[in-house]
Amino acid sequence: MTKDAIIKDFEAIVGSDNVMTSETDRHTYSYDAAVLDSVMPALVVRPTNSEELGKTVKLCNDNGLPLTVRGAGTNLSGGTIPHPGGVVVLTNGLNRILEINEQDMYAVVEPGVVTAKFAAEVASKGLFYPPDPGSQTVSTLGGNVAENAGGLRGLKYGVTKDYVMGVDFWDVDGNLIKSGSRTVKCVTGYNLAGLMVASEGTLGVFDKLILKLVPPVLAAKSMMAVFPSMKAASETVAAIIANKIVPATLEIMDNFTIRTVENFRKAGLPTDAAAMLLIEVDGHPAQVEDEAAKVEEICKQNSASEIKIANDAAERDAVWQARRDALPALANLKPTCVLEDATVPRSQIPAMIAALDEISNKYNLTIGTFGHAGDGNLHPTILTDKRDTKEWQRVEEAIEMIFDRALALGGTLSGEHGIGLAKSKFIESETSPGTLAYSRRMKSVLDPKGILNPHKIIG
Amino acid sequence: MTKDAIIKDFEAIVGSDNVMTSETDRHTYSYDAAVLDSVMPALVVRPTNSEELGKTVKLCNDNGLPLTVRGAGTNLSGGTIPHPGGVVVLTNGLNRILEINEQDMYAVVEPGVVTAKFAAEVASKGLFYPPDPGSQTVSTLGGNVAENAGGLRGLKYGVTKDYVMGVDFWDVDGNLIKSGSRTVKCVTGYNLAGLMVASEGTLGVFDKLILKLVPPVLAAKSMMAVFPSMKAASETVAAIIANKIVPATLEIMDNFTIRTVENFRKAGLPTDAAAMLLIEVDGHPAQVEDEAAKVEEICKQNSASEIKIANDAAERDAVWQARRDALPALANLKPTCVLEDATVPRSQIPAMIAALDEISNKYNLTIGTFGHAGDGNLHPTILTDKRDTKEWQRVEEAIEMIFDRALALGGTLSGEHGIGLAKSKFIESETSPGTLAYSRRMKSVLDPKGILNPHKIIG
Ligand SMILES: Cc1cc2nc3c(=O)[nH]c(=O)nc-3n(C[C@H](O)[C@H](O)[C@H](O)COP(=O)(O)OP(=O)(O)OC[C@H]3O[C@@H](n4cnc5c(N)ncnc54)[C@H](O)[C@@H]3O)c2cc1C
Ligand SMILES: Cc1cc2nc3c(=O)[nH]c(=O)nc-3n(C[C@H](O)[C@H](O)[C@H](O)COP(=O)(O)OP(=O)(O)OC[C@H]3O[C@@H](n4cnc5c(N)ncnc54)[C@H](O)[C@@H]3O)c2cc1C
Repeated sequence: MTKDAIIKDFEAIVGSDNVMTSETDRHTYSYDAAVLDSVMPALVVRPTNSEELGKTVKLCNDNGLPLTVRGAGTNLSGGTIPHPGGVVVLTNGLNRILEINEQDMYAVVEPGVVTAKFAAEVASKGLFYPPDPGSQTVSTLGGNVAENAGGLRGLKYGVTKDYVMGVDFWDVDGNLIKSGSRTVKCVTGYNLAGLMVASEGTLGVFDKLILKLVPPVLAAKSMMAVFPSMKAASETVAAIIANKIVPATLEIMDNFTIRTVENFRKAGLPTDAAAMLLIEVDGHPAQVEDEAAKVEEICKQNSASEIKIANDAAERDAVWQARRDALPALANLKPTCVLEDATVPRSQIPAMIAALDEISNKYNLTIGTFGHAGDGNLHPTILTDKRDTKEWQRVEEAIEMIFDRALALGGTLSGEHGIGLAKSKFIESETSPGTLAYSRRMKSVLDPKGILNPHKIIG
Repeated sequence: MTKDAIIKDFEAIVGSDNVMTSETDRHTYSYDAAVLDSVMPALVVRPTNSEELGKTVKLCNDNGLPLTVRGAGTNLSGGTIPHPGGVVVLTNGLNRILEINEQDMYAVVEPGVVTAKFAAEVASKGLFYPPDPGSQTVSTLGGNVAENAGGLRGLKYGVTKDYVMGVDFWDVDGNLIKSGSRTVKCVTGYNLAGLMVASEGTLGVFDKLILKLVPPVLAAKSMMAVFPSMKAASETVAAIIANKIVPATLEIMDNFTIRTVENFRKAGLPTDAAAMLLIEVDGHPAQVEDEAAKVEEICKQNSASEIKIANDAAERDAVWQARRDALPALANLKPTCVLEDATVPRSQIPAMIAALDEISNKYNLTIGTFGHAGDGNLHPTILTDKRDTKEWQRVEEAIEMIFDRALALGGTLSGEHGIGLAKSKFIESETSPGTLAYSRRMKSVLDPKGILNPHKIIG
């Protein structure tokens, strides 16, 4: 078929307003939040209902057109960088919350619903949807499931995966595949909903998600503890968990990040602090009191020089605003900001922190480190300028060394930022050649023409 | 190869003591806890370490021999009924707990570890492994993962799936596939560990499991509430959840089950009660007090005639012994006991209870109903004699009607008892033809000769 004929076919499915071919439109959807080269798609298609989505997928497959589904494009590993000449399928026209069931505590949504909008809607019904990636004000639930996004509440509440009860998705032949249920337990057939988690648009295109909701938090207390070293702060993290306290949130920030955040928004952060922990405990009011007191004690035992407890909503917001500012503030400093993801068993956080120090010295790089310390999930953020090819070379070597160290500490290549294009070449070093072969065999039969987000995850 | 030559090959791998070919041995492993015809395997192999397991799988594949892995054989859907002439691979020689990491709260185990033994070992280290299927004193962790077993604590603590951090498994070619990690977050590659959950030995053979552990429960309170009707009891369940209380356990028993349990072990149960709820709340002591008081109030509002709170460990044990007695007591009554699994969104429990009543009347069958009401997961248990072909015919019709009703109420075919051979023909009615086709395609490429537990799940 000629290109014009194909465009006509897409227009017949989604209407001519929803097929975009201009240079500007194609450019808009040529990159994501990863530091990778952009790639222009041939066209951009925007289905606005389930049927249109299914037909769009089938049309791509019938014509062997590479298809990249795109939520908000905030992923950090190249998961929505299109294949040259391929089709970008937007999900922002599939943004309906179809059901929020208060009695049975689940919701059914289309994949393009924005995370924070959904969480707010759920909260307005007196329930709680915990997964809260830093990108939540723009990221989509489909993107969250396809990346298994984490967030600040991972420690106590888990990640997106823990809230996926079911996924309906389109296979390449335009069949609707159903997995999971509105029931809290379901073992009918293979756990395909589980397989869709973190699949980055390579095995099927989500049509609907059934998400678990939980009762709201009764009480919460936030605090900020200042430490004389990253070592002391990270040992505190391990000590809190070892004391069997599971805070909702347990975040770390190094001095460089603290100073940068303070420059970004004058909030009175302790700019001379070597490290800071931001902690929130939640639950029954009495439990919150007990846990907050214990956490305070543990911080002191680990030489915290100051502990500030948020006394009201405004002070609490200030704590979390500081954390949310970390990435934008760092990203502001230099032309290129590489947000890495180094994830280790929590007890190895002190060792990983030491390794990052060594790496930034060795390669003479500016690295700001913050992250979900309670999950063992750090975000060393390298500030650089990609046009400086010499420094960029050192950045690439530093990234490899970060992975090597994380793996050597029993960690993983990617805690929450996906594999995409950015990390696919490293997968084998964590798993095994057989794992990659098994995955590729599976992909080859579920997507024989290889149209679904080519080269992502398995190369 | 001749049969003798193949036996020699297996003996070379696992030693002659661990290859069993006698009629008695083969008979022992010809059935499981489902009410289905037994099938004799050709031989039984018992590897005692990882390497032997991998070689055993490969040898089966090289010779096109159907292979059924067997933990304790307690599954209820025919998942360990061998293929005629096939090989049964026992996992009871792979029963080592390899690591319990207290700091990072995970464990690494071989698949043949017995569930309750593991939970006890974890408890002795001051941690908690929540999944507790009724069969826990004999069931294996490998069997639990392969069935995604639930248990009494599903409501608050989730099911086995929620504790699987990683699975290493053998593919048919004898390659070790690794998925997941010792870190709490991991998105390296496809979520194959998720795919292994509930896969019933059809996609790979587990070699090692990485399981999540949690802090121990601080306090708990158990109670028993007596109701004038199953309707009142089941409405109470919905009311408790609607009040945003999530008990650890919330079980129901009908009058028939109560009477049978009381006959089985004189424990002073209220034999004239139409229905009973068994409830446990747990958490911080203050939360336990609050929730117990609220639950009591809700029970009263829903016309509970009596509420007994367990005052000490002995009284608490008595409550849960009564629940654990339900199945053995019912099974004792008649030659054949069909333990069904009817799972619906929790708010539909009253409707499902009404449907079961109608079904038992329509087909003139004795059905005792108990189960995990808080999960929407009932176990209607049909007491019959399979040799009575007329009644058996009615039993089969009743089972189909149970499924139909559960599905019509937004429920599922199987909440926790697997699909196996027993339910594979019904899968399509819950999912879609495409779902089955997608699943079969996947299976065909991951197990091209179809040796892994043939015909289970996808027929
Ligand atoms: C400032 C910032 C903060 C962040 N903070 C966090 C954080 O705290 N935790 C975290 O885990 N991540 C974080 N991220 C990464 C990112 O936001 C998450 O991965 C998020 O889930 C991506 O959602 P999205 O809608 O932008 O998806 P996209 O980037 O559009 O897509 C991500 C992947 O999902 C696939 N996809 C999207 N929709 C579908 C569908 N319908 N069917 C199948 N596949 C689909 C895409 O093909 C792609 O592979 C952050 C990113 C930024 C820029
Ligand atoms: C009295 C009783 C009470 C029960 N209570 C519950 C309950 O409360 N909740 C619940 O969910 N279930 C319950 N069950 C069902 C059953 O006990 C569970 O499904 C349990 O998980 C099975 O464990 P098993 O070791 O006996 O596995 P098996 O029955 O031996 O095997 C089950 C499946 O797992 C596969 N398998 C086993 N090991 C491996 C391996 N290493 N690799 C790959 N596949 C493997 C087998 O091939 C088979 O398909 C109960 C059963 C009985 C008899």
